Parts: sequence; C-alpha cells; structure tokens
Amino acid sequence: MSYEDIFSFTVAIFKKIGCSEEDALTAAKVLISADLRGIDSHGVARLSGYIRLYQVGRINSTPNIKTIHETPSTATVDGDKGLGLVVAPKAMQIAIEKAREVGSGWVSVKNSNHYGIAAAHAMLALEEDMIGISMTNASALVAPTFSIERMLGTNPICVAIPAGKQPAFVADLATTTAANGKLEILQRKNSNAPEGWIQDHEGNSSVDAHALKSGGALLPLGSDREHGSHKGYALGAVVDIFSAVLSGANYGPWVPPFPAYVPMPENMPGEGIGHFFGAMRIDGFRPAEEFKKNMDNWIERFRSAKPVNGQQQVLIPGDPEREAEAIRIKEGIPLHAAVVADLEELATKYDIPFFF
Amino acid sequence: MSYEDIFSFTVAIFKKIGCSEEDALTAAKVLISADLRGIDSHGVARLSGYIRLYQVGRINSTPNIKTIHETPSTATVDGDKGLGLVVAPKAMQIAIEKAREVGSGWVSVKNSNHYGIAAAHAMLALEEDMIGISMTNASALVAPTFSIERMLGTNPICVAIPAGKQPAFVADLATTTAANGKLEILQRKNSNAPEGWIQDHEGNSSVDAHALKSGGALLPLGSDREHGSHKGYALGAVVDIFSAVLSGANYGPWVPPFPAYVPMPENMPGEGIGHFFGAMRIDGFRPAEEFKKNMDNWIERFRSAKPVNGQQQVLIPGDPEREAEAIRIKEGIPLHAAVVADLEELATKYDIPFFF
Repeated sequence: MSYEDIFSFTVAIFKKIGCSEEDALTAAKVLISADLRGIDSHGVARLSGYIRLYQVGRINSTPNIKTIHETPSTATVDGDKGLGLVVAPKAMQIAIEKAREVGSGWVSVKNSNHYGIAAAHAMLALEEDMIGISMTNASALVAPTFSIERMLGTNPICVAIPAGKQPAFVADLATTTAANGKLEILQRKNSNAPEGWIQDHEGNSSVDAHALKSGGALLPLGSDREHGSHKGYALGAVVDIFSAVLSGANYGPWVPPFPAYVPMPENMPGEGIGHFFGAMRIDGFRPAEEFKKNMDNWIERFRSAKPVNGQQQVLIPGDPEREAEAIRIKEGIPLHAAVVADLEELATKYDIPFFF
Repeated sequence: MSYEDIFSFTVAIFKKIGCSEEDALTAAKVLISADLRGIDSHGVARLSGYIRLYQVGRINSTPNIKTIHETPSTATVDGDKGLGLVVAPKAMQIAIEKAREVGSGWVSVKNSNHYGIAAAHAMLALEEDMIGISMTNASALVAPTFSIERMLGTNPICVAIPAGKQPAFVADLATTTAANGKLEILQRKNSNAPEGWIQDHEGNSSVDAHALKSGGALLPLGSDREHGSHKGYALGAVVDIFSAVLSGANYGPWVPPFPAYVPMPENMPGEGIGHFFGAMRIDGFRPAEEFKKNMDNWIERFRSAKPVNGQQQVLIPGDPEREAEAIRIKEGIPLHAAVVADLEELATKYDIPFFF
C-alpha cells in the first residue's frame, strides 16, 4: 500500500477520536515513519492499539501539553495523557528551542504514552545542525541480570548525528539483545528463538519464542552475565531513570502496558510513561563545517573497513533504515494480512473509506 | 598495600615528572580510585605507562588546559597534551559549573590522554546533586559488526545518578562484551576466553585469549550480529563521535595507543585522545527531594526483585565497586607481583623511598 494512502487513513482515524488536524498529522507522520524505516512492529500495526487505549480512557486526544519545571537548558513536560506520538515531538521541539538559546536542551516527560520509534524524534534535530537524543521507557518485559522478574521495558535509545555530504548517523537501539518485534515475528511463525534472547519463568535460558507468555522475560543486551548482560541492564536502567524518575512518570515494573486489556500495575508511583530528549548544537562545540568534514571522514573510514570474508561491508548506524525508506516511499509499504484486517475493522467502526 | 602508601608514592612520581602539587594530587586520586573500586587494570598498574608516555614527549606535565569554544551549556576544552587524569576532572568541573548556571553542562575534550576510570569523573557530579556523565575514546581494539579491522576502543560510558538514603547509582561500562582488563587476566593465566569476547585475524569467533596479539579484535557488546553486536558497535561509535569528532581529537583507528612503544597511527585527523562529560542538575527537572525519594524507591524495588533460583540478589550498578572500595580502604589494595616490581623500578629511577 502506498505511504500516502496509509498516511491519510491514519490521519482520518486520529481525527475521529478527537485529535486536532495538526495533532493528527503529527501523530500519523511519526507512527508511519516506523513503517517507512522498516520497523513494522512500531508502525500502523499499532494504530488499533492506540485507539483501544483511547477507548479505555488512557489517552487524551486533546491534551494540554505543558512545561511544568525548567531552567535555560532543561525542562520537565507534562504530556497530559496525550498520544506519545504528539507529546514527544512537542517535547523534542522544546529541547531544540533551548539548544538554540543556550547550546543544548534536555527534556524529561511524564504522563505520556507509547511514542512510536525513538528515531522519529531524535532526527528532528538533524535539520537544525544539532545532535538529537531520544529515549523512552516501556512496560516491563526485561529481566535484569540475576532476576526472574521483569523489571524494565525494552527501553530504546536513539542518537542522531548530522554529517556533511554523507547521510546522518542514526543509531536507534532497544537495550535488549533482541527487540520484542523480532520475537513477535518468530512467535507468528512458531519458530524457535536464538539462545540468549529470552529466559523462561524460572530464569533459565530458553529458545521458546512463546516463553514470554508464560512468565519468561527478554534478556538485556549482552544476554548473560558472562557476555555483559549487566551492561544492557544498566543502559536500560539509565533510560528508565532519565525518562521517568527525572520527570515523575512510572518506572520499572510500574510502567503502564500498551495493550488496553492488560490491567494497570498496582500502587503506581508516577503518571503515565516517561520519555527523555536532548538536543546539542554542533556549533556549541566547534564550527559546524569543521565537524561535518570530520564526520564525513569518520563515516567513510568506517564504511570502508575491511569486512570479514564473505560478509557484507561494515554498516553505519541508520543505513538499513534509510535504505528501507528509499524503497518503501517508492514501492509502497507491505502490510501483514492481520494488520490489513485490523485496519479494515477500524475503517468500518469509524466509517472511513478503506481502499488498501 | 595501604591506600595511603600507594597514594603518596604516586603523588611523588607525578611530581618528579614536573606536575604541580595540585595536579599530582588530582592525578593520583583519580588513578588510584580505580584500585579502590576493584578495577585493577586502570589503576596504579598503569603508572609506569603514563611515565613512559611523558618520556616520549606525548604527555605535557604542565599543560595549559583551556576552553576554546563555548555556549552557556556547552564547551570544548583543549587538554594541551596534559595527563587525562588531570584534564578530565577540570573539564568535568566546567560541565558542573555550567549546570549550576543554566541547568546542564556538556564538555567535549581534545588533546588529552588516558583518563583512568570513567566513574572517577562522572561521580564528581554526585555531591552537587547532579547526574554526571563521562565517556572517552581509546585506541582501536574493537571490530565493528562485519569488520575484520579494529576501528574503535573499548570506549566506556559512565552515568552516575544521586539517590537519597540509598547509595548512588553508578553504571560504568565498556561498550564491549568484556573489558580488555578481563582479557589480560586470562592472558596471564594462559586460559581460554569465553566464546563471544574476541575474534581472530580473519574475523572468526575465537577463544584464544592471545588472539588480539595476532591481528584479532575485541567484540562489541552483544558479541555477534544475532545477539546485537551492532548495538554495542553503535554505542562505542557514539562515544567516539561525542569525544573526538565534536572536539577535534583523533577518532576511530587514529586514536593514539597507550603503550609508548607502539608507533602512532599515520595521517591522524585530530589532536590526542577525546573525552566527553555531562552534568545535569536534578532540580533542573524536579525538586531534588522528590527525585531522591523516587530514586530510593527505584533502587529498593530493583534490589528486591526475585532472583533466579540459586543466584545472588539483583545488583544496582555501582554495588560491586562500592563494596570493593569499603574493603580496600580498610584492608589495603592487593597488588600483583609484576606491578610491585614495576613500581620498584620507578622508585629506583626517580629516587623515591619504596616500602610496599
């Protein structure tokens, strides 16, 4: 299906739940940037999930998003239960505005929801000749090293760095060995997962892709203690603390789940989900042209590193997603049959023409 | 040997190469904080290595460390070839000062040298009720995913976060599966390394702890593509770019080696080694007391996560190092015989009483 068709359909749906024209356009752009970049798990496949959160009263379609605490280079934003897809770009713009004024801007966000892909927000900094940083916590699926309990989300970090002639460096990574979306693909196929991605309900290493549904957990980047899982756990923890303890959102095992049918955790210590954004002006450190010349050199040198025999060339973070986007914007976005059925149901429910 | 004895010996040595009293005290404190925290590879065992760098003219013992570019929240510092052990705390103080003024401070450093453990600098923020961040690049030992060439150092990241009644959260991690120091221990014992730590000169997975000496490489956190090595590579790359492309230091394969006998890379694009520091005022986001209450709750909840049967309780980043410090400050620091011999040689050379 074409990007344009999916986009206008998504805008129409968000307007039906009460979003303003502007917010619906923003939310659709962020959501479908995931499909464009090949991260199918975070794109339009989740549209009906957001709508269900609206229906159970966990999303406010007309939020009053506001700064509740600030210094010249820092701020905390209350998302007022808005769509993360709308709250996040607004918070990132606040970070960018502060960077314009004083060199850098850092914004922690509470009372938000799932914000799509981290890169969608960090990359807003690129057109301003700034480095962009974006992270979010998420509901607990990950067991820290030595833990049987799920305590952290897949808590992604994105760092987007502008270059000159070369395309930007965009690292966007879940702090787990494998993103949950990859596990979902294996679950649909009933395939085993590689050793090191998950543990079962007793904390033993497992290859059963369904182990998460019976009390298992995703493993932090590093897989096990001997291979550095304590580092992946520490990185996921930093994301959780920057996003939620700094802002007053829920953290650790108290982060609200995305599926609307899953009950909310008890005794929640904060409000909603938390995010954290940063923007640093390149010319806050050195003239932008000098930086870009070195950054081009960095990228060219790494891309030309001698590859292992028989393997592909060394990639720069962001290469695969940029290539996916170039193809999908021209040739359209392939949607899984289950996703099409889901969207058709939404179309019927909200009386929107459906022509996928 | 007692902390005090090692400390005063180290101060004396740094003074002998021309450091001021103040710089010698700072350098010794930073260097030996590694021994105290149990990171033996980065402590006094490296003292003779620093001295050799001085002897070949790669360290300036009386540097004019200065800010060469700045905004209210950002700066670039030229370390003037000073000891990283001295340059880094000065740069971190600049970050802290900026955070006092405008909420956060971010400092990129060029023309420096090895700075000891990342935590020594990030933790300076804790006593100010700030979050501290510290990272550095280092000479290339690590092969990016798909690469046969070593392109990155073990490039550590430290994030130090204050709490209330609980001790601070201090994550200090090399962006590799295993730190080089751990590999060196196996080399001394002639033991094999676990699968996933290193590759050989053809890029094949290897368990030979000596493989680095014959063209092999350390692997990024994640070990291989299937287990997320592209994420460890991306994190190491971010450290390299923040530390060196932002500041104008050397990056990637051009970072100067620590051993003075290893020739410098050709066609170096920058000056010295690079570091990056950050400080964020907690009360730039919310009242510090509120934050600390939630941070205590975060720490207590994670520490009490149900452990896997038969395994130890879940640790908070910084726990093992704090425990090591409590023991070593009382009972002394165990030094390897080779390190003692090395220090004795320094003592003779510089005519300093040696009583270890």
